[in-house]
Amino acid sequence: MRIPLDRESAVPLYRQAQDFLRGEIHSGSLAPHTRLPASRELAASLGVNRLTVMNAYAGLEAEGLVYSRQGSGTYVADPLPSQVAENAGAPASDWPLWQQELLSPSWLPAQYEPDQAAALPARPDVISFAAGMGDGSLFPLEEFRRVLQEVLRAGGREALGYGEREGYLPLRATIAHILASQGIQAQPEQLLITSGAQQGLALVSRLLLRPGDAVVVESPTYAGAIDLFRSLEVRLAGVPVDEQGMQVERVEDLLRTARPRLIYTIPTFQNPTGTCMSLARRRQLIVLADRYHVPILEDDFVGELRFEGQALPSLAALAPAGQVIYMRTFSKMLMPGLRVGCLLANGPVYDRLVLCKRVDDLASSSLIQRALDAFITVGRYQSHLRRACKLYQHRRDAMLEALTRYLPPGSHWRAPQGGLFIWVRLPGGLASSEVLPYAAAEGVSFAAGSHFFAGARSQPFLRLNFAEHAPESIEEGIRRLGQAVKRGLAEKAKLEQATAAERRAVPSQRGPAAPGPLTS
Amino acid sequence: MRIPLDRESAVPLYRQAQDFLRGEIHSGSLAPHTRLPASRELAASLGVNRLTVMNAYAGLEAEGLVYSRQGSGTYVADPLPSQVAENAGAPASDWPLWQQELLSPSWLPAQYEPDQAAALPARPDVISFAAGMGDGSLFPLEEFRRVLQEVLRAGGREALGYGEREGYLPLRATIAHILASQGIQAQPEQLLITSGAQQGLALVSRLLLRPGDAVVVESPTYAGAIDLFRSLEVRLAGVPVDEQGMQVERVEDLLRTARPRLIYTIPTFQNPTGTCMSLARRRQLIVLADRYHVPILEDDFVGELRFEGQALPSLAALAPAGQVIYMRTFSKMLMPGLRVGCLLANGPVYDRLVLCKRVDDLASSSLIQRALDAFITVGRYQSHLRRACKLYQHRRDAMLEALTRYLPPGSHWRAPQGGLFIWVRLPGGLASSEVLPYAAAEGVSFAAGSHFFAGARSQPFLRLNFAEHAPESIEEGIRRLGQAVKRGLAEKAKLEQATAAERRAVPSQRGPAAPGPLTS
Repeated sequence: MRIPLDRESAVPLYRQAQDFLRGEIHSGSLAPHTRLPASRELAASLGVNRLTVMNAYAGLEAEGLVYSRQGSGTYVADPLPSQVAENAGAPASDWPLWQQELLSPSWLPAQYEPDQAAALPARPDVISFAAGMGDGSLFPLEEFRRVLQEVLRAGGREALGYGEREGYLPLRATIAHILASQGIQAQPEQLLITSGAQQGLALVSRLLLRPGDAVVVESPTYAGAIDLFRSLEVRLAGVPVDEQGMQVERVEDLLRTARPRLIYTIPTFQNPTGTCMSLARRRQLIVLADRYHVPILEDDFVGELRFEGQALPSLAALAPAGQVIYMRTFSKMLMPGLRVGCLLANGPVYDRLVLCKRVDDLASSSLIQRALDAFITVGRYQSHLRRACKLYQHRRDAMLEALTRYLPPGSHWRAPQGGLFIWVRLPGGLASSEVLPYAAAEGVSFAAGSHFFAGARSQPFLRLNFAEHAPESIEEGIRRLGQAVKRGLAEKAKLEQATAAERRAVPSQRGPAAPGPLTS
Repeated sequence: MRIPLDRESAVPLYRQAQDFLRGEIHSGSLAPHTRLPASRELAASLGVNRLTVMNAYAGLEAEGLVYSRQGSGTYVADPLPSQVAENAGAPASDWPLWQQELLSPSWLPAQYEPDQAAALPARPDVISFAAGMGDGSLFPLEEFRRVLQEVLRAGGREALGYGEREGYLPLRATIAHILASQGIQAQPEQLLITSGAQQGLALVSRLLLRPGDAVVVESPTYAGAIDLFRSLEVRLAGVPVDEQGMQVERVEDLLRTARPRLIYTIPTFQNPTGTCMSLARRRQLIVLADRYHVPILEDDFVGELRFEGQALPSLAALAPAGQVIYMRTFSKMLMPGLRVGCLLANGPVYDRLVLCKRVDDLASSSLIQRALDAFITVGRYQSHLRRACKLYQHRRDAMLEALTRYLPPGSHWRAPQGGLFIWVRLPGGLASSEVLPYAAAEGVSFAAGSHFFAGARSQPFLRLNFAEHAPESIEEGIRRLGQAVKRGLAEKAKLEQATAAERRAVPSQRGPAAPGPLTS
């Protein structure tokens, strides 16, 4: 196999090899279950260090494009569904012109990528800390099943009708009660049921933002928000996060210079960092938003999952009427497949959001809303919440202990007081993408830090979900992660040495038509 | 009560009175259950014909803002939820500035209005022909309930997980089989499950259109599409419809002059006209779209509901690969509350749509998709379809007969060969909005023609749904409609006479500071 390598390029050789092989697999030149050359042979034929080839293969494995069999070698994997669709039928040039335009890289902002979770093949032997939700096994499935039955029996065909555009009124009343029990005043008429929190975010953003507008966000922030904002072609004005949450002191400058049309914030147990915005900063942010006439979208995705420390009031509770749009989901607390979230909005913006919802998808599933309403009472919800907090606190502690035991020195993290995530900084300038192949080999996965930043591709951070697994799995998973980080550090060091050696020792393989530069 | 009336205005006096009273009700100046002045008294105090006041009151009643009690008078109704929200708390000027901007009329395109169905209060005594769906009682609810149970028992927590972004794969396979049985070749990898067809329409439009772009649509067309396109600030290039569907001969001119980025069409049993595009026009449209490199979005919302006549191939079946995006819903055939539709797209556009779906709402309800998949087999679906066709054909015939019997001469309609709707042109230049108050009084409702046109406010058309009710209700409902139309015609004639007489006889009530024009 001949792989064209450019030794003068800033792109590392292993990455060039990986890119080339990915292309061959996507185009079908390398069919599923083809055995790739042994790393030793390929390295020899290309005149590169064997580590370079091994790194390229490990990267492809992390992408789900190849798999390895112990002692037998590396093979091309079965294509993922999205690859099948893209390649079904015809080469790009056979598609209608308007479709070819969609293929142009300018169509999507530069770093708009399929999410990691969907790209990684599901392997039962992998312990995944990548998820964004809690432990689904807490959800009383059998009770929910019975409630669903009752709703279909009692509600009959009406339960399968379109229902109200704003959402099922009794459910809105129940949610208003739950919010009130958590210190957030809400009327059912100020609540709009959405298909998950993601739709709420999309509705608010589409209503308030136009291409070219700026949005203030925490940096890092929720990856789904970054993807959405990119798809709307808005500029992201990122504010760094410290142990007190968003550094609000820096916001006024942005309000003056970037003239944002929205402030999107996750003040409590922030995604991905797990930090809470201090009360003083909450007050300051509201004052600034009011002064510069900028709406705040408060994403309170797990604010109620507090294990310890003092509860902080939501921005919606602190702000003057109509200043804050407040967003909530039931996916994190109950089950993601319910696809039920809600927006709390006060003032003229409410009716506009209802109109936006209508053109978006008419209404959310009436059946699920009725079942959820029959299922959650304030009491049942609070008791579910207490159980979740107790369980997750225990798991957080297990993960903190395991991190201390297994991660190499120089790694850094903070203990969150609630939520779902621990945010880890890797040692030695190691990027999470450099750990990924070793993590896949060890059988552990995480959410790579780069997904939570708008700009840079490579980040020395991982987000770990501590809520999903039992302490024993957490212990074992973090042990594997420790191994992967150590291997990453070692290989990074070796690779840097090897690449430096190659650049000195191996002559360029390109022909005389394309000579290397005389000076380098 | 003093109502300021401008006798020089082009706006009819009854409309001016209605607008003024609506404002008083919205602002709370007229509280719920306040009795309005008797029409005779108010007419005398304003110096107008009593019919003017009665018309204003009837219009407010149709809007759900007032109710009348036999022999006791007219009262302000309880506010609708959306009005409560808009007026809760504070006057507009107290809201944050960014919210006040949302109130500006320039924010929404001129005729963007809340839909009629949501605005009309649900009254059990009204026979409504306004719905956009079939008869929900055909749906085997008990069977569906059992299937849902099995899915929750067998699928467990997985049934409530996020599921695949493209939609539940077995359901996509089932849909591909159903489409194949109807002559449309589809692979599961080319199908994307959406939250109803409306979301499919929104995804395609957001992907392909930018503000200022033009879209070719039938005129009239689906009201939900018009609302969506308006919200995206795109221009609508309407093509008239005759008994052979969209007048495709006129499309080439539009393609050349308006340079549209999308052709949106409902070729089979078009909404609202019920017409089918001829085979020749289907071929011609595909040739044109191909020549001008414009994608076609084919909305096949009830194409399979054919009672008689020869089936026509879908555009997706006729067109070259990747030219047509095909859209389907299960709301019309099964139950709207399921909120399951799908897109069939071939080529690079498919992956783009999957990304759009992800930023929109992550995924559709996994539970409902699994239940639907367990519920619909090709055989069961086809037998459900046969039953629906037989029943709806019978009801169509009942409505055609009733229309002939009860509608006054000069009314016009065509017998559709399938679908859900009959499109009626009213006699004597009567607009559907002029029939609305009388229809409300008689106890019948319909979808007003103006909702299906992009531009004009007033249209002499009604859309009648024949599929939802049993023949006896159809007969009674059309009898009432006939009465309403006759009353509308009579009152229109009287009102025109009265208004003309008023303009001659009553002196202007405005003071000397604002004298009328010297010539008129």
